[in-house]
Amino acid sequence: MEQLPFRQVLETAEKIRTMEVRGAGHIARAAAGALRDYALVLETKSLDEFNFEMKRAAEILLNTRPTAVSLSNATWMVMRYKADDLEDARKSIVSNANRFIEDSQRAVEIIGEIGSHRINDGDMVLTHCNSMAAISVISAAFRTGKDIQVIATESRPRNQGILTIGLLEELGVPTTFIVDSAVRSFMNDVDLVVVGADVVTANGSVVNKIGTAQIALIAHEARTSFMVAAETYKFSPKTILGEPVIIEERSPEEILPNVSRYKNIRVRNPAFDVTPYQYIDLICTEVGAISPVMSYLIIKEKLGWELGK
Amino acid sequence: MEQLPFRQVLETAEKIRTMEVRGAGHIARAAAGALRDYALVLETKSLDEFNFEMKRAAEILLNTRPTAVSLSNATWMVMRYKADDLEDARKSIVSNANRFIEDSQRAVEIIGEIGSHRINDGDMVLTHCNSMAAISVISAAFRTGKDIQVIATESRPRNQGILTIGLLEELGVPTTFIVDSAVRSFMNDVDLVVVGADVVTANGSVVNKIGTAQIALIAHEARTSFMVAAETYKFSPKTILGEPVIIEERSPEEILPNVSRYKNIRVRNPAFDVTPYQYIDLICTEVGAISPVMSYLIIKEKLGWELGK
Amino acid sequence: MEQLPFRQVLETAEKIRTMEVRGAGHIARAAAGALRDYALVLETKSLDEFNFEMKRAAEILLNTRPTAVSLSNATWMVMRYKADDLEDARKSIVSNANRFIEDSQRAVEIIGEIGSHRINDGDMVLTHCNSMAAISVISAAFRTGKDIQVIATESRPRNQGILTIGLLEELGVPTTFIVDSAVRSFMNDVDLVVVGADVVTANGSVVNKIGTAQIALIAHEARTSFMVAAETYKFSPKTILGEPVIIEERSPEEILPNVSRYKNIRVRNPAFDVTPYQYIDLICTEVGAISPVMSYLIIKEKLGWELGK
Amino acid sequence: MEQLPFRQVLETAEKIRTMEVRGAGHIARAAAGALRDYALVLETKSLDEFNFEMKRAAEILLNTRPTAVSLSNATWMVMRYKADDLEDARKSIVSNANRFIEDSQRAVEIIGEIGSHRINDGDMVLTHCNSMAAISVISAAFRTGKDIQVIATESRPRNQGILTIGLLEELGVPTTFIVDSAVRSFMNDVDLVVVGADVVTANGSVVNKIGTAQIALIAHEARTSFMVAAETYKFSPKTILGEPVIIEERSPEEILPNVSRYKNIRVRNPAFDVTPYQYIDLICTEVGAISPVMSYLIIKEKLGWELGK
Amino acid sequence: MEQLPFRQVLETAEKIRTMEVRGAGHIARAAAGALRDYALVLETKSLDEFNFEMKRAAEILLNTRPTAVSLSNATWMVMRYKADDLEDARKSIVSNANRFIEDSQRAVEIIGEIGSHRINDGDMVLTHCNSMAAISVISAAFRTGKDIQVIATESRPRNQGILTIGLLEELGVPTTFIVDSAVRSFMNDVDLVVVGADVVTANGSVVNKIGTAQIALIAHEARTSFMVAAETYKFSPKTILGEPVIIEERSPEEILPNVSRYKNIRVRNPAFDVTPYQYIDLICTEVGAISPVMSYLIIKEKLGWELGK
Amino acid sequence: MEQLPFRQVLETAEKIRTMEVRGAGHIARAAAGALRDYALVLETKSLDEFNFEMKRAAEILLNTRPTAVSLSNATWMVMRYKADDLEDARKSIVSNANRFIEDSQRAVEIIGEIGSHRINDGDMVLTHCNSMAAISVISAAFRTGKDIQVIATESRPRNQGILTIGLLEELGVPTTFIVDSAVRSFMNDVDLVVVGADVVTANGSVVNKIGTAQIALIAHEARTSFMVAAETYKFSPKTILGEPVIIEERSPEEILPNVSRYKNIRVRNPAFDVTPYQYIDLICTEVGAISPVMSYLIIKEKLGWELGK
Repeated sequence: MEQLPFRQVLETAEKIRTMEVRGAGHIARAAAGALRDYALVLETKSLDEFNFEMKRAAEILLNTRPTAVSLSNATWMVMRYKADDLEDARKSIVSNANRFIEDSQRAVEIIGEIGSHRINDGDMVLTHCNSMAAISVISAAFRTGKDIQVIATESRPRNQGILTIGLLEELGVPTTFIVDSAVRSFMNDVDLVVVGADVVTANGSVVNKIGTAQIALIAHEARTSFMVAAETYKFSPKTILGEPVIIEERSPEEILPNVSRYKNIRVRNPAFDVTPYQYIDLICTEVGAISPVMSYLIIKEKLGWELGK
Repeated sequence: MEQLPFRQVLETAEKIRTMEVRGAGHIARAAAGALRDYALVLETKSLDEFNFEMKRAAEILLNTRPTAVSLSNATWMVMRYKADDLEDARKSIVSNANRFIEDSQRAVEIIGEIGSHRINDGDMVLTHCNSMAAISVISAAFRTGKDIQVIATESRPRNQGILTIGLLEELGVPTTFIVDSAVRSFMNDVDLVVVGADVVTANGSVVNKIGTAQIALIAHEARTSFMVAAETYKFSPKTILGEPVIIEERSPEEILPNVSRYKNIRVRNPAFDVTPYQYIDLICTEVGAISPVMSYLIIKEKLGWELGK
Repeated sequence: MEQLPFRQVLETAEKIRTMEVRGAGHIARAAAGALRDYALVLETKSLDEFNFEMKRAAEILLNTRPTAVSLSNATWMVMRYKADDLEDARKSIVSNANRFIEDSQRAVEIIGEIGSHRINDGDMVLTHCNSMAAISVISAAFRTGKDIQVIATESRPRNQGILTIGLLEELGVPTTFIVDSAVRSFMNDVDLVVVGADVVTANGSVVNKIGTAQIALIAHEARTSFMVAAETYKFSPKTILGEPVIIEERSPEEILPNVSRYKNIRVRNPAFDVTPYQYIDLICTEVGAISPVMSYLIIKEKLGWELGK
Repeated sequence: MEQLPFRQVLETAEKIRTMEVRGAGHIARAAAGALRDYALVLETKSLDEFNFEMKRAAEILLNTRPTAVSLSNATWMVMRYKADDLEDARKSIVSNANRFIEDSQRAVEIIGEIGSHRINDGDMVLTHCNSMAAISVISAAFRTGKDIQVIATESRPRNQGILTIGLLEELGVPTTFIVDSAVRSFMNDVDLVVVGADVVTANGSVVNKIGTAQIALIAHEARTSFMVAAETYKFSPKTILGEPVIIEERSPEEILPNVSRYKNIRVRNPAFDVTPYQYIDLICTEVGAISPVMSYLIIKEKLGWELGK
Repeated sequence: MEQLPFRQVLETAEKIRTMEVRGAGHIARAAAGALRDYALVLETKSLDEFNFEMKRAAEILLNTRPTAVSLSNATWMVMRYKADDLEDARKSIVSNANRFIEDSQRAVEIIGEIGSHRINDGDMVLTHCNSMAAISVISAAFRTGKDIQVIATESRPRNQGILTIGLLEELGVPTTFIVDSAVRSFMNDVDLVVVGADVVTANGSVVNKIGTAQIALIAHEARTSFMVAAETYKFSPKTILGEPVIIEERSPEEILPNVSRYKNIRVRNPAFDVTPYQYIDLICTEVGAISPVMSYLIIKEKLGWELGK
Repeated sequence: MEQLPFRQVLETAEKIRTMEVRGAGHIARAAAGALRDYALVLETKSLDEFNFEMKRAAEILLNTRPTAVSLSNATWMVMRYKADDLEDARKSIVSNANRFIEDSQRAVEIIGEIGSHRINDGDMVLTHCNSMAAISVISAAFRTGKDIQVIATESRPRNQGILTIGLLEELGVPTTFIVDSAVRSFMNDVDLVVVGADVVTANGSVVNKIGTAQIALIAHEARTSFMVAAETYKFSPKTILGEPVIIEERSPEEILPNVSRYKNIRVRNPAFDVTPYQYIDLICTEVGAISPVMSYLIIKEKLGWELGK
C-alpha cells in the first residue's frame, strides 16, 4: 500500500481525471499544491531518489489530462529546479509551487487592471461564454466609474452566458443578452470584444469556446477591437514543436437529446475553435498586453522554454 | 351585418392577423384566394362600385400585416387589372388570383430544379433555419442521385434546425447537426451554403432568419459559394422608394424565460438580420438564377413595378 | 446681327461658359429654358428648317462645357421629339423643357424624402463637401423629428464644408466639423455616410469632390453604410460607350499661393475623384434608391439611352 | 441520299464537330451561314414543312458542340422569326443570318474602339492567353498614338502567349513576356488587365482560359483595373436557368508527355476557369461597356431571352 | 532659494512645459542634458542623498509633459544606474546622458541610411506631415543618385506639408504637392509611403499626425508598401501595461477661426491618430528595420523594459 | 604558388562560383567544410596570423556568391569564435563547422517531423517547385500512415515540378500534377500549402521560387493554411539593416528560346518573388514552428545577430 503522502497525490490526480476539479486555473493550482505537499513530507535516502519520486508524482498528475496546457505548465514550473542536496530541492519545489499558486491567483486581477485601460467611458463591450479573465477586465473598468454596457451571448450548447449575466447582474453592469446568431446584428454598436482563452499557441492563435472565431471575424469586418484576456499559464510551449491542439468534442446529447432516433443525422459538438492571430488585436496577460504574435516570447520569458531546446 | 361573401374576407384577414395562417406563401395564397372568392360572388350595380368594393377588401387584407411583403405582393398582383365592364373585371381578378396561387405553389419546385444544378456530386451543403425553397434545392440534387451531405444549424432561439433535420432524415440525406457557433469550424469543408429569404430588397440585400448574415460572412471568408433560394413574391417593391424593412423583435422569453428576475439585464431578440448583397453569389428564383443586384429587375419584370412610377 | 431670340441662346451659352451660371442643376435648367424660349418664338418656313435651327442652338449650348453631363442630359431630353409639323415640334420641345425643369427642381426634395428612410433615430451621419441632395436627405430626416447628428468635413482646398455647416447651423442640426484627415478617427461612430455626385457612370462608379473615394474606402473598412444622393440627370449615358470622365484639375494657387517660387515643386489639384461601385451601398435618386450597378437602368429607363444604339 | 443543300448543312456540322472550324466566332458564323444558305434553296410545300426542315438543320448544327455558347446563340438568333408565309420565313432567316454575321465580324473592332478609351497615355496593360477582342482594345489604343506597353503571359499549357507576342511584335507595341507565375511580381506596375472570354454567365462571372481567375485576384489585390473584352454572342442565356458551364479538361499529355509511366501521379488539365464578377470592373462588348452584373441585360436586350420565359 | 545647479533643472523643465523647447528629440535631449549637468555639480553628503536629489530632478522634468514618451524614455535611460559610491553614480549618469544624446542625434541619420535601401531607382515616395526621420530616408536615397520623386501632402490643419516641400526644394528632389483628400487619387502611382511617428506602442501600432492611419489604409488597398521611420526613443514601454496613448486635441480655431459664432457646430481637432500594425510593413529604427509587431523587442532590448517587471 | 590547404579553399570557392556546387544547403556545408579543413592544417606563427588567414579564406568564399544567405550564414557561424591561443581558435572553428554541418543536415528531417503535425488524415496538400524541406513535411506525414494527397505545380520555367512528382511517385504518395495557372481552380479542395524558402527576411517575408507569392494570395483568399518550411540558415540577418534581397533574373532563353528574333519583345525572368508575411501562417524550422514575424528571433537566438549591433 502506498504511503499517505503519495496517496494524496493520487487523490488529486483522481479528482482532476474525473473532473471533480475542473477549470484551467483550479487544475493547475491543485497539481502545484499536490507536488508541494508531497515534497514537504517526502523522506528519501538521497537527492536522486527524491528527484525520482517527485518526477513519478509529476507524471501521474500530467497523465490525468495530457492535453490540458495549464496542468502541464504548472507541473513544468514547479519541477524546474536545480539542487545540490535534498533540502535544497525540497525548498525549491515548495517555493516554485507557492509562487505559481500566488501568481496564478493574482493573474486574473492584474489582467483586469491592465485590460481595463482599453475600455473607455461610454463603451459597449461584447463578451462570449463565461471567462473570469474577461469579466475581470469589464468589472475593473466598471469599478473605476466608467459608464459602460455589456452584450453577453447565450453561448450554446451549454449556455454559459447565463452564468455571465448572473455575475454582471450582481456587479450592476447594464447588460444585453442575445443569441449567438445575433452577434453581427449588434457588432456595429460594439467598441470592444473581450474573451478568454483555453490555450494560446506559439504563433498567437487562440483556442477558446466554440463561436469565438466567428465573433472575431465579425469584429474584424466592422473594425471593432478584439482582445483576449489570458493568464500566462494558458500559453502552450509544445505548439512550438508543431504539436497540434486537440479540439475536444463533447456529447451529442448536449445539442440533440434524442439523437439515437435519427438514422441519417449525426451531431458534431466541438467544444472549442481556433481564432487566427490576424483577427486578434491584443492579448492581455498578467505580465502585459501584447500583440498575439508575441506569444512565443511569453512562452520563452515567462515559462522558460526556448526554440530548439 | 356584413354579407356572407365579405364575411369570408374578414375571416381570412383575421386568420392572417392572429397568425393562424402563417408563413409567407400561405399568407399570400390565402389573401389571393379570398379576393378571388369575393370577386366571384360580389354583386354590384356598376363597375365603379365593384372596383371600390374590391379595393376595400384588398386594404383590409393588407392591413392585417402591413410589413409582410408576400401579402402585399399577392394583393398587388391580384388587383392589377383594367376592365371595361364588371364581368371583365371579375374575370381578370379570378384569373390573376389563380395564376398567382398556381405560380407560387410551383415556385418551390422550380427553384429546386434550377438551384440543384449548382450542387455537384460529392458536395457538402450547409443550410440555416428551415426554408422550404432551400430544402427543395437540396432534395432536387439528392433525387438525381448526387452523393451529397448536408450540415444543418440548430437556429436558435426557436431551433427550426430540428424541423430541417426531420425533413432530411425522411429524405435520407446524410446530415450533420451543429450549433450556430460552430459554423466557422466547418466552413472550410462546405462547398455551398443555401438559405431561404423572408424579403429581398431592391438593391439585393436579403432579410432572413437571424444568423444568416454572419454565415454569409463566414462563407465569404472561405471562398464558399452562398446562394439564396427565394420565390419572386419575396421581393419588396417598396424598398425602391427607400422604405426600410422593419426587423421584428420577438419575445425575450424565447431566450431567457425568467428575464423579469434580472434588474440590469435586458434581452434583444431580433428575428431576422440583413445579409448585404456583396456576400451573396446568386439568388435562385422560379424565373431564373440571378445576381443579387438584379433584384430590381425581378421587381420590375415579374411584379410590374418601375422606377419613378 | 442675330435675331433677338437667338441672342438669348447665345447669352445663356456665354453665362454657362464663363461659369456665371454654375452648378450641375442650374446649368441644366438654364439650357433647357433657353431651348424652350427659343422654340416658343422661332419662326421658320418649314419643320426641317425649325429642326435645323433648334439643333444649331442645342449644339452651341452643348459646346460651352462639353464634359458637363447635366448640360448634355438636359439638351438631350429637351431635343427628344418626333413631330409631324412645326407646331407639333414646338409644343414637344416646350413640354420636354418644362418637364425637365420641374422634375429637376423637385428631384432634390424627393431624394431627401426617399433617402431619409435610411437614417434612423440616434444616427450619426457624415457628409463631405457641400451637396444639396445629400443635405436634403439629412434635413428630411431631421424634420421628421429624428434625433441625428452630422459630421461635416472641411473639404479642402475650397473649404465647401464651411457652406455645409452654415446650412446645418440654420437648420439646427447638431454638427461636428473636422479636417479631411480626421475622417478615419471618427468613422467607427458614424452610422451612414451621405455624399452627392457630379457624375454617375454606366457601371455605377461615382465621380464626386476630391476625397470622396477615400471616405468610401474608410466607411467600407468599418462596415459603415455609404449612400450617394444624385439626381438622374447626373448619370452619364456616354460612359456606356467607354467615354472616360475627364477629371478637371483646378488652379495650383488654390493649394499653394506662391507656387512659382519653387523650382522642384509642382502642385496637382484634381477637383474630383472616382469612387468604385464596390464601396457604394446605394444611390438614391428621385426615381428610387438603387444598387450602384443598376445605373445603366437609370440611363436607359429615365434618360432613354440603350445599349448598342 | 440527302439533297445537295442539306449536304452542305451536314458538311458544316462535320467541320464544327471535328474542330476543322474552331474558335467561338468562326463556329458561330459558319452555323449562321449554313442555315442561311439552306433557307435560300430549300423548297417545301408549306410553311410548316419549311419550319420543320429548318429546325432539323438547326438541331443538327447545335448538337455538334452542345456546350459551345456561340453556336447556340448564333442558331437561336437566326431561327428567331415569325412568318406568315414561306417567302417571309426565308427572308427573315436570311436577314437574321446576315445581320448576325456582320455584327459579329464588326464586334471585335467596335470593342477595340470602346475599350481603348480605358487605356491612358503611358499605361502598362497586361493580357493573358490570345484573345482577339483583348488585342483589339490594345491595338486601338496604340493606333491613336498612346504611348503604351504590354505584358503578355506565356499561358501554359498551350503557350498561346507566343501567338500574342507575335501579333504585338507586328503591331510594334513594346511588350514584355513573362511566365504565368510572375504575374504578381509585375502587377504593381500594371494599370489595366484586359482579357477575353469564352463564356459570360447571367450573373456576370466569366469563363476564360485557365489562369484568368488568379490574375483577376492579383489585380484586385493591387487595385488594378480588370476588363473583359467579350462579344455579346459569348453571353450564355441558359445560365439563367442554373445550367452550369462545363469546364472542359484537355489531354494530360499537354502537360506531362509521359504520364503513363507514373503509377501515383495523375494530371488535371482544365482548359478554363471561372472569374467571379466581384473581381471584374467592366465587361466591354460591342454594344457598350457594362458592369459584369449587367450581363443578364445583354442576354435579354441583345439575345432576346427573358426571366421566366 | 534653490541652488544654481537646481535652478537650471527648473529652467529646462519650464522651457519644456511652455513648449519653448518642443519636438520629441529636442525635449528628450534637453532633459538628458539637464540631468547630466545637475549630476556634474551636485554636492551631497552621501550616495543616498545624491540618488534622492537626482530622482527629484528627474521627476520634476517628467511632470512637465507626462504623456511625452521621448521625455519619459530619456529620463529613464539616464537614471538607469547602479553605483557603489557617489562618484560612480555621477559618472554613470553623465555617461548615460551623453550616450543618449549622441545616439538620438545620430539616429535620424542611421534611419535614413537603413531606410534608403527600401527605395529603388525610379520610385515615387509619398510622405505626410513633416518628419525628419522620414525625410532622412528620402534624402539618403536621393543622395546616392537614385532617380526618385516625392508626393507631399498639405497636412491640415497646421499645413506642415509646406515645411516638407521647403526642405525637398532645397535638396532638389522633384516633388508634387497635394491636398490630404487627393491621396487615394495618386496612390496607384506610389511605390512606398514613408512617415514618421510620435509614439510606437508595444503591439506595433503607431501614433502619428492626424491622417496617417487613412493613408496607411489607402496604401494597403493598393498593395503599396508603408514604412514608419522612428527613433527607438519613440517606443512606449508603458503601453505594455495597457496604459493608453492619449490623443491630444488642439484648438478649434486651427480649423474654424470664428467657431464661437455657431450655436450648433462644434469642432473636433485631434492632433494624431492610431495606425493599426496590420497596415504597417516595416518600422525603420536606428537599430534596424523590423516588423511592427516586434516593437516589444525594441522596448525590451533597447530601452531595457521587460514583461512582468 | 599557394599552399595545398589554401588551394582547397580556392577550389571550393571556384566550385561555388561556377555553380558546380549549388543549392543553399550544399553551398553552406561546402564552405563550412573548407574553412574547417583549412583550420585543421593551417600553420602560422601567431594567433593573429591565424585569425588573419582564416578571415582571408572566409572572405574569398563569401565573395563567390555575395547574395547567397546560406553561404553568408555558414561562414558567419564557423567564424564566430573567441580564442586565447592558436589551438583554441583551431578547435573552435572545427567544432563550429562540424556543428553547422550536422545541424543543417538534420534540419530537413526535424522540419519534416515538426511540420507533419500540421497535416491531418485525409488532407490535400499543395506544394510548389521542388523544396526538400517541404517534401520532408509531406513524407513524414505520409510515413506515419496518414491518408494524404498532394497537388504539385509544374513550376515554370524550369519545371521543377517534374522533380517533385518523381520523388512523390517513389514515395507512393497519390499526387495530382497541374500547371501553375490552375492553382486557384483547385485551391478550395486544398487543406494546406507547404513550400520551401530561399531567404527569410527579418520581418518575416519569404523569398522563394517565382509563383510562391501568388499561391499564398490564392490560399489566403480561400482560408487555406500556408506554411513555409525553412532551415534556420535561410534567415537573413542583413535584412535587419535594410539590405534588400536581390531578386536574380535568369536567362530569357528559359522562356523564349528565339528571343533575339523579336524587335519589340523582351523577356523578364525573375527567379524568385517575395511573399508578404501577412499571407504566411507559419514558418516551420528545425528549432520550432513560428509566426513569420518572429523571424528576427531566429536571427537573434539561432544566428547570434542583434538589433543595433
